[in-house]
Amino acid sequence: MPPAAPEFALIERFTRALPLRGEGVVVGPGDDAAVLRLRPGEDLVATVDAVVEGVHFDARFAPADVGWKALAVNLSDLAAMGARPLHALVALGVPAGTPGARLAGVARGLGACARAHRLAVVGGNVTRARELSVTVTALGAVAEGRAVLRGGARPGDLVAVTGTLGDAALGRSPGAPAALARRQRRPTPRLAAGRALAGVVRAAVDVSDGLAQDLGHLCAASGVGARIGVAELPLSAAYRRAARGLADPFAAALGGGEDYELLVAVAPRSLARARAAAARGGVPLTVIGRFVRGGGVEVVGARGEPVTPPAGHDHLRAQGRALGRGRPRR
Amino acid sequence: MPPAAPEFALIERFTRALPLRGEGVVVGPGDDAAVLRLRPGEDLVATVDAVVEGVHFDARFAPADVGWKALAVNLSDLAAMGARPLHALVALGVPAGTPGARLAGVARGLGACARAHRLAVVGGNVTRARELSVTVTALGAVAEGRAVLRGGARPGDLVAVTGTLGDAALGRSPGAPAALARRQRRPTPRLAAGRALAGVVRAAVDVSDGLAQDLGHLCAASGVGARIGVAELPLSAAYRRAARGLADPFAAALGGGEDYELLVAVAPRSLARARAAAARGGVPLTVIGRFVRGGGVEVVGARGEPVTPPAGHDHLRAQGRALGRGRPRR
Repeated sequence: MPPAAPEFALIERFTRALPLRGEGVVVGPGDDAAVLRLRPGEDLVATVDAVVEGVHFDARFAPADVGWKALAVNLSDLAAMGARPLHALVALGVPAGTPGARLAGVARGLGACARAHRLAVVGGNVTRARELSVTVTALGAVAEGRAVLRGGARPGDLVAVTGTLGDAALGRSPGAPAALARRQRRPTPRLAAGRALAGVVRAAVDVSDGLAQDLGHLCAASGVGARIGVAELPLSAAYRRAARGLADPFAAALGGGEDYELLVAVAPRSLARARAAAARGGVPLTVIGRFVRGGGVEVVGARGEPVTPPAGHDHLRAQGRALGRGRPRR
Repeated sequence: MPPAAPEFALIERFTRALPLRGEGVVVGPGDDAAVLRLRPGEDLVATVDAVVEGVHFDARFAPADVGWKALAVNLSDLAAMGARPLHALVALGVPAGTPGARLAGVARGLGACARAHRLAVVGGNVTRARELSVTVTALGAVAEGRAVLRGGARPGDLVAVTGTLGDAALGRSPGAPAALARRQRRPTPRLAAGRALAGVVRAAVDVSDGLAQDLGHLCAASGVGARIGVAELPLSAAYRRAARGLADPFAAALGGGEDYELLVAVAPRSLARARAAAARGGVPLTVIGRFVRGGGVEVVGARGEPVTPPAGHDHLRAQGRALGRGRPRR
């Protein structure tokens, strides 16, 4: 029998830190594919996202932060659909010479996030690559026909958002306060809020690219426009302090990205129920504007003046920024 | 509304080449996650695999070959489980300056493979990266409880393999005959054979790391050993011609990897049925040895002498080879 390749030692070490058994897992990692058994009457919800060194994380991230974030950004998509997480598959790109301890740290963080949200890692893959990357596919379940889509907003609905905005974007700066840096490195997927809001809101999207851009996606999918006010944006105390010295104190909240909050469309008559649902999910829900006929996102400044929203966090441009290769090109 | 980021233009261009609708697809790409509706009585089968520039493909690959291979290697895992493919999610890592035409070519090849096997691409992600990579998650279905696992082989069962071995490995050489190069670039997942064999064989694994290594995996999962003979290995005419000048003419077939054939355990009394099933799937099935009590893989040479099987294709070492960084280290 051939000697065990380093690939398999690595996989075993990585796998040991992960929860591998869970609801519906007939066969987990180790075979050609996982076998999963879902219940009748449920729809499966599936999403994939990657975190890449130099784009979504840098040397300031602890390995465990990388693993946590790789899974959390996927769970945020499940949260927006109103789904509960079930399973994840993890594909690693690993540069030559990566210390085993670094990968073990990634696995620990990913495992911690998986356990916190009670999902099983059911499969994976590892390959050589030039930079460390973690690509996660997350599978979740939602009652048949009850997934919350982006396309349900109607003119007159309220634009509302969970939690606070812009913390993660300000958390990218070297020397950012710990509370902000933590939101960048350890985002909290709003799963409980997403599930509680599922029967109440008309549409939802998670804020990953930046509020203005993701609101634009929701508007486009719904065939409506939106008008929001910067004075209404929910900002944390840490954000307010950090933004004091900035030329545009609202830019990070409007377009910084990586917030992983939920942006929803709520019929005015459902607002109290929506607030209560979000509260059951552990987050406040703040109304920041209204959906209107037409298209596009209009932003109104603190003194009523029109504001041009920033372009948002573009994952294709991000590396240029993160690696200091000068101004990103359009 | 912020201007559309280049990310979204790229996604749209990529997506246009892919089949997006299919069985059970309630919501495809464009929302936070796909929504999929499976039938009761079926198990979901899920697997993830990546192809990375310089590891699994190089400059000699047409972009469409890259896309084809990225999906095909995943479908090979579904084939080994006896599953039929349903859906795929595609995560792209894209270097700065990648021509749009290259990505469109990748999408075309991926789309061609998806259409050939009647599956829908239901989601995806794109991020900046230092090398081009395509990570595919494939979802398939199998009748409840009927997935073919690696752990079912028993002493006395026959070791059998579909198609021919080693073609893809010899196809890696510069100037390799077209028939061999094609097997490297456009592997054919044995889906029809896998489904036909599902009720007949006791265990299965797909040959991706090399025959000896994957047989070792099957043996370990089953708690048995295996004895195979190099004289029995199914070799194509093109392989025999190309291998004539090599010091070890069997090395590529035993350990070259990337064959994407199915290696199965067959009870002797089921052999005729297994051959017929494979034939219905369009491939021959060749008996190459027997499972035995104990553990490990024993290889017997053409004159009955013991052969040390090669270590197999290690995806963590492969890049060192492909990029010409000298001898790979253990």
